[in-house]
Amino acid sequence: MSLAQEMFAIAPALGKANLGAAQLKLLTGKARWIFRVGEAGFPTVPTIAITRAAWDELQAERSRRDSRLRTHWVACLFKLVEKDGKPPVLVVRTSAVLHNGGLMPAKTGIAAPSAPEDSVDPNRPLARAIKEAFESYGPTGRGWAGARSDVDRSRQIVLVQAYAEGEIEQFLTRNAATGVIGPAPVNGHPLPRLPESVAALVSLLDAKAGRHMTCAVAVHKGQVRFLSARPIEASPAAELTAAVDRVERKVWTPQNAVSRVDPSRLGLVLHPRIKLTHDVAPIATGLGVAPGAASGIITFNAEDAARLRARGKHCILVVNETGPADIEGMKAATGILTARGGMSSHAGVIARITGKPCVAGLRTLSVNVAEMVCHIGDREFRAGDRLTIDGTDGKVYVGTLPLAQPQIGGAIGRLLGWSDASRTIAVRTNVETVESAQTALSFGAEGIGLARSEHMFFSPERMVALRRVILSEDEDARSKAIAGLIDYQTGDYSALFSAMHGLPVTVRLFDPPLHEFLPRTDEEIEETAASLGFSVRALRMRLERIAEINPMLGHRGVRLAITYPDLLQMQVQAVLAGARAASETQAEPVQVELMVPFVSTATEVAWVRERTMAILENSGLSRSDRVRFSFGTMIELPRACLRAGDIASMVDFISFGTNDLTQTTFGISRDDAPAFLAAYQRKGVYARDPFVNIDEKGVGEMIQIAIERGRAVNPRLKIGICGEHAGDPISLQFFAGLGVNYVSCSPYRVPIARLALAQTSA
Amino acid sequence: MSLAQEMFAIAPALGKANLGAAQLKLLTGKARWIFRVGEAGFPTVPTIAITRAAWDELQAERSRRDSRLRTHWVACLFKLVEKDGKPPVLVVRTSAVLHNGGLMPAKTGIAAPSAPEDSVDPNRPLARAIKEAFESYGPTGRGWAGARSDVDRSRQIVLVQAYAEGEIEQFLTRNAATGVIGPAPVNGHPLPRLPESVAALVSLLDAKAGRHMTCAVAVHKGQVRFLSARPIEASPAAELTAAVDRVERKVWTPQNAVSRVDPSRLGLVLHPRIKLTHDVAPIATGLGVAPGAASGIITFNAEDAARLRARGKHCILVVNETGPADIEGMKAATGILTARGGMSSHAGVIARITGKPCVAGLRTLSVNVAEMVCHIGDREFRAGDRLTIDGTDGKVYVGTLPLAQPQIGGAIGRLLGWSDASRTIAVRTNVETVESAQTALSFGAEGIGLARSEHMFFSPERMVALRRVILSEDEDARSKAIAGLIDYQTGDYSALFSAMHGLPVTVRLFDPPLHEFLPRTDEEIEETAASLGFSVRALRMRLERIAEINPMLGHRGVRLAITYPDLLQMQVQAVLAGARAASETQAEPVQVELMVPFVSTATEVAWVRERTMAILENSGLSRSDRVRFSFGTMIELPRACLRAGDIASMVDFISFGTNDLTQTTFGISRDDAPAFLAAYQRKGVYARDPFVNIDEKGVGEMIQIAIERGRAVNPRLKIGICGEHAGDPISLQFFAGLGVNYVSCSPYRVPIARLALAQTSA
Repeated sequence: MSLAQEMFAIAPALGKANLGAAQLKLLTGKARWIFRVGEAGFPTVPTIAITRAAWDELQAERSRRDSRLRTHWVACLFKLVEKDGKPPVLVVRTSAVLHNGGLMPAKTGIAAPSAPEDSVDPNRPLARAIKEAFESYGPTGRGWAGARSDVDRSRQIVLVQAYAEGEIEQFLTRNAATGVIGPAPVNGHPLPRLPESVAALVSLLDAKAGRHMTCAVAVHKGQVRFLSARPIEASPAAELTAAVDRVERKVWTPQNAVSRVDPSRLGLVLHPRIKLTHDVAPIATGLGVAPGAASGIITFNAEDAARLRARGKHCILVVNETGPADIEGMKAATGILTARGGMSSHAGVIARITGKPCVAGLRTLSVNVAEMVCHIGDREFRAGDRLTIDGTDGKVYVGTLPLAQPQIGGAIGRLLGWSDASRTIAVRTNVETVESAQTALSFGAEGIGLARSEHMFFSPERMVALRRVILSEDEDARSKAIAGLIDYQTGDYSALFSAMHGLPVTVRLFDPPLHEFLPRTDEEIEETAASLGFSVRALRMRLERIAEINPMLGHRGVRLAITYPDLLQMQVQAVLAGARAASETQAEPVQVELMVPFVSTATEVAWVRERTMAILENSGLSRSDRVRFSFGTMIELPRACLRAGDIASMVDFISFGTNDLTQTTFGISRDDAPAFLAAYQRKGVYARDPFVNIDEKGVGEMIQIAIERGRAVNPRLKIGICGEHAGDPISLQFFAGLGVNYVSCSPYRVPIARLALAQTSA
Repeated sequence: MSLAQEMFAIAPALGKANLGAAQLKLLTGKARWIFRVGEAGFPTVPTIAITRAAWDELQAERSRRDSRLRTHWVACLFKLVEKDGKPPVLVVRTSAVLHNGGLMPAKTGIAAPSAPEDSVDPNRPLARAIKEAFESYGPTGRGWAGARSDVDRSRQIVLVQAYAEGEIEQFLTRNAATGVIGPAPVNGHPLPRLPESVAALVSLLDAKAGRHMTCAVAVHKGQVRFLSARPIEASPAAELTAAVDRVERKVWTPQNAVSRVDPSRLGLVLHPRIKLTHDVAPIATGLGVAPGAASGIITFNAEDAARLRARGKHCILVVNETGPADIEGMKAATGILTARGGMSSHAGVIARITGKPCVAGLRTLSVNVAEMVCHIGDREFRAGDRLTIDGTDGKVYVGTLPLAQPQIGGAIGRLLGWSDASRTIAVRTNVETVESAQTALSFGAEGIGLARSEHMFFSPERMVALRRVILSEDEDARSKAIAGLIDYQTGDYSALFSAMHGLPVTVRLFDPPLHEFLPRTDEEIEETAASLGFSVRALRMRLERIAEINPMLGHRGVRLAITYPDLLQMQVQAVLAGARAASETQAEPVQVELMVPFVSTATEVAWVRERTMAILENSGLSRSDRVRFSFGTMIELPRACLRAGDIASMVDFISFGTNDLTQTTFGISRDDAPAFLAAYQRKGVYARDPFVNIDEKGVGEMIQIAIERGRAVNPRLKIGICGEHAGDPISLQFFAGLGVNYVSCSPYRVPIARLALAQTSA
């Protein structure tokens, strides 16, 4: 393309623009909308564009006292002249989409150049304005809206428009909060009175852009002329409503809607969130470990939380870290704020299960429980002060901010319905209570991919029963303690299977990080000793002996099943008894999938399989058509990935626990990562947090190796993903490429996964 | 081979045996030595052999009233008849090497069968004795000495000998303790008077067998006839002396000696060990984490240990676990016994550095420091009681057992000299003090492959300096604290480089598991607070805040260098200043290899490399021929193995930290593994402890992937192994197959590695 072609009319005063392909490519930002609206036949203010390359050459030519290109430029300016032949007053503006980059605002009232030389002389108004406009893009292309802004600044453009008579009015194509089609008011300003013909412009722009636009027009004697438009960020709920509305208006196909909505923003619709009506600065930022926002009164213990809840007050439980003793407090609180721990900390796990917003690992927080006071940085807070936390982004604010409640309206349901039509990978959920299972079902879960059996013990009575097992001094005592769990477990499983009405349920064998289930404070230790009939001294010694230095890599998972075979037997029996009970009360057969966690060798799988199959055989259920039993393992250690071929011959399915696999592949404890993760992201060592977006080149290759080796040996191997990554759209795209059969995520992420996976299939 | 050929004379009374190849293969156990001694021309008692297969067929034939094979058997028995033509009195014995399997002892005084039928009739003495001999091998072939005993029992043999006149005498071919050539006494019995001609038999057997043999002869009128022989287990020192002696006698080539000595037994020569003169049962078994045996008085604290040492007494420090406060106590003690922790625990690390025998993770031990009493199982011990521990096998004994001191005589030196001639892989050592470096050099180390810089801080004064760094509240305080370390470090490195006289020294950047360097007891916390000028309360809060849940996967290794760049800069400057200083006092250039630990991404390596190279450039040493600097990284995480291609382009060398790589590949904290490792080995889940012998199929494949990817990008990449596995013969054989350039192990394992690697090259 010659530089002469880089100065052209987007919307000429007379006739059509007739742009070449190369020119069409230059239409970024506002230029694009002006061209498209004009082409569609809506009255548009005459506009021309010039690229930086052309402008620079005009200036170079000028210093050479040449005028070849200038002739083209002057001819281009003549495209702004209407039928009356009078040179119009001019307006100069950048074409950028974003207006937050120090860009020059539109410069109006510029006299048309009276001589060709004036049109390029930077001492004259037109050329001066153009020069300023280019300069305002800044040296790094800040404010530049083209893709790859850093690469080709020469293609940045400036617009010159004829000045339009009449009032300049602004409006949105759709309501920013509700998504209802406009014209709609901008930033809460009153909507100006607009001629009816604006409706056609709104429809036109909405169809062309497929997103919320802010739009400027000139209204003169009831006539509307289009000036410019640029997209705006609407609320996730508004975007959703708009997408569904476009399908109803037949502007989009359902598939368009599915592919255009950003799944990561879908989650924001499903939780309370802070309405940031004006600039409120957070006082600190921790880790957002359980999404949603919460406002409330600061409390430091469960008693106060329960008291406030009883009085219908919201409270935020503020602690250094949480443990079993805090569960009741966490349930009573509206939100949780902790000084220590990460995504997989006790606080994070419990908060997500209970659906409580939680900010964890706020390192500037210190809590003095005894004195009922905490500090966040320099600021001191006492019980009764108010905080607002945002578990989505980890931000903490002083006082009570207004919150928006989740809107699970018809729009999200329709969009997800469309997305299911094009989705080939199943979406399950990670839950272990009937209540959570029902929530997940309402969000469209197609089964349970991970029921963490140890999470069924988060109540005081059961905690005692579990502690009795963990703290047993010898085999006999342990066997007795384990026998005491079977009734709980049978009932739990039966209820869970019934709740799922024949959808598959993957029960993971016991995998408690033991330390999370043990008493810690003096008071808890005394209570536990009393309830177990130990002396306090004996209990302390026992606790000291079983304390682990690295619990994440300790005596857990399949290691418990092999060292305590009674526990394995109790669990398998309880699962089977639960399945039998559920199958007697429903039409559908119960689909049970038993999963062995934390294996690193095929021998471990063989060991558990042999014992499990013997119990199954004894139960008579192996020949029942009322219970369909399958056996699998969780792959969450690098060695299990490498040995997946050996493992695959013994299992019906494998499910990748991507959290632990990320921890071991990187050698990072997620709980301890906050000490360096922020610095790593700031210094560019990690482009993305590998606990949020799957690390494709490391953890991803591990998974790939395992799938290849597993399927080579067992082509019918069913493959799933459970763990946080199963609810992350970027990660889901990667998993879909590996050919997994299903993913399983927390209930609130089920809709996100449904949409994200539909997009990968499209 | 027909069954007739499976009954044959090994040493016929007249003439030579003339065995076929198939018959030679049947010569296992004693039969082999009788045949070989007889063939060599030494007078030997006439002996025939029969296989179980032949014997069974003889019995089957008998029940069929057939006699075809019996004719062969009778003919075979006639081979025992000497020139005088008189049928001899017979002796029946098994041919097995091992005598601990319930085998029938030799049955003597059996009359020769008077009729052919008698020779197979189990009611007659000869056939009855043969039947009993076969039965005594047992149903599982217990006591059977052939290879693959479980596979082919039909090839087991029984010997029938002519009864030899005279005294039956036993002796060893070499002294069991010293290895000096015999005849030597058996089990401390007095040596019988033997004719001089026995010397020829001893030489003959020693040359044929190449190991210590116990030998039975009949002495009659000054004439010696050989009866049988079997190998015995001699002390490692005796085996070594014997091997070198055989080379001197030109029975073996030096290469024979190198390939015949078991490297894993070499280590036993280099440490004190328990002389188990009679059966002493251990009272408990923990983990042997630092080799050697120690006896002494039980102490529970450093003060008592120091007091006893000052009085020239040996003591065993008995604690629940060790920490920085115990280092002085550990130095003063002769041995260390802990209730918790594994191979890489603080106790294990310090014990190996200081060369103290240590048994760790003795789970039946509990120590009550306040009351100065400990329990091991049911037994109670008080300060002043005596224990003996064996850090080689983890055994603990009551009282003081006699110990044998290491014998690093000429024999080991000569053997290792020969082994170096055929070795192609270098052997370095893991040390950080001048004293340990000198020990390692005396053991033949060819450089330092791992100097753990944080280990240079194990003295009270330095500990305070290091704690000041760790506990700094902000950047400023940290920078000042770090600046306080540079003089220590420069001096340390300079001394270490000088001690190594131009051999390569790999300095690993700071990689402290922070918690090992922090105060724990109230007293320590008060002291630390005072020395750092903190309030006790502030220090406690700070300690609580930096406590890690999984320190193994926490804020360590390269993560420290990136979050605290001052620390990196200080270390690189100190290393370079130390190298410069050392280079000025010696003829050889200093070879410095800087190693970045615990990397998981190539970006981390690039980040550290860029800063390191800038400091090197500034120092002017990059162009010096007095200091040769190279840059590398430690590969100890699965992700680093996968990304080795990216990493290799930026480094001169990589060294595999196999301990941490095993921990992350398996997801096992070595410190916490004792809770299930014993059960895993007992139940056959692990055939071998992966922390002792490298796991070839998992961790090994990780290493293989890294080497392939690394060398593909950088063919000149130097590759090393550091970690415990670098001193394990089985692992070394695997590493040699991967084409590594060097290995690096603790000083006492250097000789083992030299020998093991020579064997892999042979």
